Amino acid sequence: MALTEFGLITRYFAAPQFAVTPGCGVVLGIGDDAAILRPPPDQDLVVSIDTLVAGVHFPPAMAPEHIGHRALAVNLSDLAAMGANPLWFTLALTLPQADEAWLDDFSRGLAALAQRFAIALVGGDTTRGPLSITVQVHGSVTRGMALRRDGARPGDEVYVSGVPGSAALGLQRVLAGHGSEDALARVFLNPEPRIALGLRLRGIASAAIDVSDGLLADAGHIATRSGVRIVLASERLPLCAVSESQSALDLCLAGGDDYELCFTASPVQRGTIAGIASALGLRCTRIGAVLQGEGVECDGHRAARGYQHFGG
Amino acid sequence: MALTEFGLITRYFAAPQFAVTPGCGVVLGIGDDAAILRPPPDQDLVVSIDTLVAGVHFPPAMAPEHIGHRALAVNLSDLAAMGANPLWFTLALTLPQADEAWLDDFSRGLAALAQRFAIALVGGDTTRGPLSITVQVHGSVTRGMALRRDGARPGDEVYVSGVPGSAALGLQRVLAGHGSEDALARVFLNPEPRIALGLRLRGIASAAIDVSDGLLADAGHIATRSGVRIVLASERLPLCAVSESQSALDLCLAGGDDYELCFTASPVQRGTIAGIASALGLRCTRIGAVLQGEGVECDGHRAARGYQHFGG
Repeated sequence: MALTEFGLITRYFAAPQFAVTPGCGVVLGIGDDAAILRPPPDQDLVVSIDTLVAGVHFPPAMAPEHIGHRALAVNLSDLAAMGANPLWFTLALTLPQADEAWLDDFSRGLAALAQRFAIALVGGDTTRGPLSITVQVHGSVTRGMALRRDGARPGDEVYVSGVPGSAALGLQRVLAGHGSEDALARVFLNPEPRIALGLRLRGIASAAIDVSDGLLADAGHIATRSGVRIVLASERLPLCAVSESQSALDLCLAGGDDYELCFTASPVQRGTIAGIASALGLRCTRIGAVLQGEGVECDGHRAARGYQHFGG
Repeated sequence: MALTEFGLITRYFAAPQFAVTPGCGVVLGIGDDAAILRPPPDQDLVVSIDTLVAGVHFPPAMAPEHIGHRALAVNLSDLAAMGANPLWFTLALTLPQADEAWLDDFSRGLAALAQRFAIALVGGDTTRGPLSITVQVHGSVTRGMALRRDGARPGDEVYVSGVPGSAALGLQRVLAGHGSEDALARVFLNPEPRIALGLRLRGIASAAIDVSDGLLADAGHIATRSGVRIVLASERLPLCAVSESQSALDLCLAGGDDYELCFTASPVQRGTIAGIASALGLRCTRIGAVLQGEGVECDGHRAARGYQHFGG
């Protein structure tokens, strides 16, 4: 039986797993021309939109459950990088056909992550076309407390969470046919947005970004927006365990898709940051320094660019 | 010269035509992990997201300027249907390649409409893939004053703005090769979101929806959500001037893509609504009645469904 557009939304995206809980600020969710939302008083709203295209952002054969997870995770990662608290999201889903098994899996992966971060699905659009998923997330942050890219100052130190490069290594495993039973493949398949870290870094970090294009490129974005120079030291970088040390360094600097946080902070915050990392059970490594000047480099080598969709 | 993703955004979408004006609540716009926005105090936020796919929502050969206009217009139309005041929008643009002439035209059409409604572009994403445009709009409305689909009550009357069916007729002209020099083609190419009408209907209309799927289908959505029966009278419908009267009626009831407003109001509002229509120079026609029961019909015939992307 073919599903109508309305049937599809009701069945997969308005179901209990996306239920809106009392107090979450949703006055009116799915089912009208638009959603009506009540932002928390005296908070700023933080919004980010990202599209995943099949064959560009994920392998076409990736399990729909992982696609659903990823579509929300990459957006939550942007909220994490701003130190924002997740509130609501919208979903624009373009599908070649209304494949019920696909929708079942996709919505399950999406709902599991949404529940974990208590973020409500408040609206969307379903259209027919080549597979592509756009999610917009909305979060809140106390006024003036958002983590931005432009706050790094000479004298600050540079940190990164987790082990950048793991996702790129995981992607190699996925492309070789491994699924979520493989620990490395899982890092690529189930990126974990660092929301808790971002929230705790408010008032501590001077700048932050999520590592999606590759560590060197993303640190470079902080350098550009802050008008500073960032110098990373290769011997400090947390590296994946791979057979060849040069590959490990390349993966760490240019791997992409890690969704870890790269951030800067004054040296006086060292102890506090160590405490946060310990409390979260999340590795946070001091990897470099912020200097006067411009650009980003590692061991004196200037940055190669990370992944860009329209490479120049 | 190939454009990088960052170059593309800076050149086409952060340019002066999308400049954010003081007082519009944009704390931080394009260029960080997310935008930071300050909603107006004591207002609810109204959000809607819509995707346009080439070949599904517009003819692939449509001029990029009209695609840019349309991508924002269909979303502004949702804000109009809620009685919301436009504030900000985000843009997720998927393109087969970074074609500079295309981007020039597209961004010009988008910017012209954005300026007219003073809606600021605050964030976005550009990706490579089959042409598709997703826009999310954000508006504000005084708490409790939004127009919804679920407020129609037996005894209310049904209205529609403009001349539904004109856009479907216009599409026929476009497919026959006519451009914006043709008045009917222009109706399809440049849909006009009824923001001013929506704003003035707050506190007057009991329910509202924008006519995108076709008048009968959209009136049916009000009936469903409000738990009422809606009866339209064909002799009251504003019809396009076409050679055959049956075609005119079909176009009006099922044409789609009109982006007019269909709304309900108590009979005591007749004079007020006539005054609003007159002040706006916009035809608003009383076309039917709200009764107890369910469903929508015209002259005793039950509704045929309007356009659906996954037709059942």
